[in-house]
Amino acid sequence: MSASTSCLDTPVALVDVPRMQRNIQRMQQRMDDLGVRLRPHVKTSKCLPVIQAQRDAGAIGVTVSTLKEAQHCFDHGIKDVFYAVAIAPGKLQPALTLRRQGCELSVLTDSVAGARAIVEFGQLHKERFEVWIEIDCDGHRSGLVVEDDALIEVASVLINGGMQLRGVMTHAGSSYELDAPEALQALAEQERVLCVSAAEKIRAAGFVCPQVSIGSTPTALSALNLEGVTEVRAGVYVFFDLVMHNIGVCRPDELALCVLTTVIGHQQEKGWIIVDAGWMAMSRDRGTQRQRRDFGYGQVCTEAGEWIDGARVTGANQEHGIITLKTQTDSNLDERFPIGSRLRILPNHACATGAQFPDYHAVDADGEVHLWSRLHGW
Amino acid sequence: MSASTSCLDTPVALVDVPRMQRNIQRMQQRMDDLGVRLRPHVKTSKCLPVIQAQRDAGAIGVTVSTLKEAQHCFDHGIKDVFYAVAIAPGKLQPALTLRRQGCELSVLTDSVAGARAIVEFGQLHKERFEVWIEIDCDGHRSGLVVEDDALIEVASVLINGGMQLRGVMTHAGSSYELDAPEALQALAEQERVLCVSAAEKIRAAGFVCPQVSIGSTPTALSALNLEGVTEVRAGVYVFFDLVMHNIGVCRPDELALCVLTTVIGHQQEKGWIIVDAGWMAMSRDRGTQRQRRDFGYGQVCTEAGEWIDGARVTGANQEHGIITLKTQTDSNLDERFPIGSRLRILPNHACATGAQFPDYHAVDADGEVHLWSRLHGW
Repeated sequence: MSASTSCLDTPVALVDVPRMQRNIQRMQQRMDDLGVRLRPHVKTSKCLPVIQAQRDAGAIGVTVSTLKEAQHCFDHGIKDVFYAVAIAPGKLQPALTLRRQGCELSVLTDSVAGARAIVEFGQLHKERFEVWIEIDCDGHRSGLVVEDDALIEVASVLINGGMQLRGVMTHAGSSYELDAPEALQALAEQERVLCVSAAEKIRAAGFVCPQVSIGSTPTALSALNLEGVTEVRAGVYVFFDLVMHNIGVCRPDELALCVLTTVIGHQQEKGWIIVDAGWMAMSRDRGTQRQRRDFGYGQVCTEAGEWIDGARVTGANQEHGIITLKTQTDSNLDERFPIGSRLRILPNHACATGAQFPDYHAVDADGEVHLWSRLHGW
Repeated sequence: MSASTSCLDTPVALVDVPRMQRNIQRMQQRMDDLGVRLRPHVKTSKCLPVIQAQRDAGAIGVTVSTLKEAQHCFDHGIKDVFYAVAIAPGKLQPALTLRRQGCELSVLTDSVAGARAIVEFGQLHKERFEVWIEIDCDGHRSGLVVEDDALIEVASVLINGGMQLRGVMTHAGSSYELDAPEALQALAEQERVLCVSAAEKIRAAGFVCPQVSIGSTPTALSALNLEGVTEVRAGVYVFFDLVMHNIGVCRPDELALCVLTTVIGHQQEKGWIIVDAGWMAMSRDRGTQRQRRDFGYGQVCTEAGEWIDGARVTGANQEHGIITLKTQTDSNLDERFPIGSRLRILPNHACATGAQFPDYHAVDADGEVHLWSRLHGW
């Protein structure tokens, strides 16, 4: 523990920069080996130094979940920005503004109505929007299934309406429900096959469909073959978290985000240690609840970062976290975890926990702390 | 629906100002009738115009959950600030700074070790901190039970160490688990009796213990008698939410906070409506999960605010909410809820949902929208 972090008021979100850099290298190397481009999803970090590290390692462009992220990236020199949420008609005006500023913003739709709204707005403003069509590869959320006749209709509406079809995209979000390598490989292959099929179906109908974009961190780290795919989107790999750990795609020493907290009390008879990281710090995300190992609101580590076996945040109020140990021992909690002592908590979900903080405190290899601001809101 | 809100990009957090004002009046009137002061907990709103409305209605001082809230309130003329989380020794320096600026900040402890840390720091800096002792009235979280010998020891350490004992406080947080008026009344009485007993025990030991501070929104709205109590703290009553609705302390037309969202897609076969309010907007709070009525991630209303019976946000990804209806009908979802149309979502937990937004869009009685910024972080 460096002198620098010991001066920080708690709770703070710490990023272990060497771990983050290794995570970035790992994913980039994998994508390089598989012969596809990596377009990181910046919704996890919403933080420029993180995005720059991803780009320095070889990523092309970015994926964003909000137009605020798009604007922020563009303001810092990133042109190739994919807004990967089906665009609401009301967001076409800010999207246009970004494009008129020189941002190569591409947008998404998964419906004829959505495509028509883009075409109508684009024609009105003489803008040739670059558009992706969303494919549903696993019933997880949005998108058109390959068999749906609307797929060709959407492509037709867009292209005949003067828009540019950038390609097809999908996200195998159901990968978060798996935890066996074989199942993950199978889902990754399903994600690839269905998205490539969608592109081929569009091409067979006579339309140009250059790109095939797939991705989720678990499938990206499990795919054995990405033939036909042109790019992969993934986000949470940059920090990883307990959900990813349970899925089996990262080791404990790859978890790059934690919350530093201070012990503020005890309930000795119940075996509770009270800390100043409640749900406002950890978020209410309980992503490990339905996984093979439920970490409560987070895995507790020493201040230096060593896992305390079985110590979890089992309860959370707004600014109070309740930590319980593996077994309720006779030991005096106030001797083992005195008031004022510090602990680290690994989060279930890095995207959700990060979002609770205005900035990360990034700890580099020398233990020096850098303040990295992150976006909040829309 | 005013023209003003129809221009807003989504998602946004809307505050219904007339409802909020009625909620504030209701609680203030109740406390006036019961003869106690009201010290609102500003952790719910973290927003100055809301706090000012509470003060204009008669509240004295504020309760805060972070020193950032304390600083913000003090910067805007509020002196009597109670930081109602047991203070970590590392936060005594910023607390001192606030007091030296003229803020009458009072702090909290529930342990001998915590009291000693305050005394040691106070003596070192020649500061007579105003301190409350936390009482555990329902086993919910922190605090000393009345029978604990440490209660007198903490009072003794503080007073003999030259600090000022402001009084005792408790929070009946287990009221969130109830939903019957009789049970709530009983818990409110338990909260009162135990906290008053603690004060009397301290007084019987020869120490001055002027104040008795209790509170939670459900018990504050259920108490029939507050004899011996000097002040009540409550927070979420200002907006209310679905958790409070399930507990039975508010009506639907008292819910003053909602998220305005836009339909961005459908999965007709599954009966899903996809909107642009995911967990980043609603928060991951699932507070109604264990209550008598589970609202998922929120109750769906029309754009004008009318409840759509049985329509809930049943799934949430970062920027995608999945709405399902009461019954999966044959009706075309894209006709009933076209892409681009808007809905309102009532949150489970106003404190958690509000925290996802940098500001509230406050809609006054004339439908005019005011931007009210709120605090984020620590």
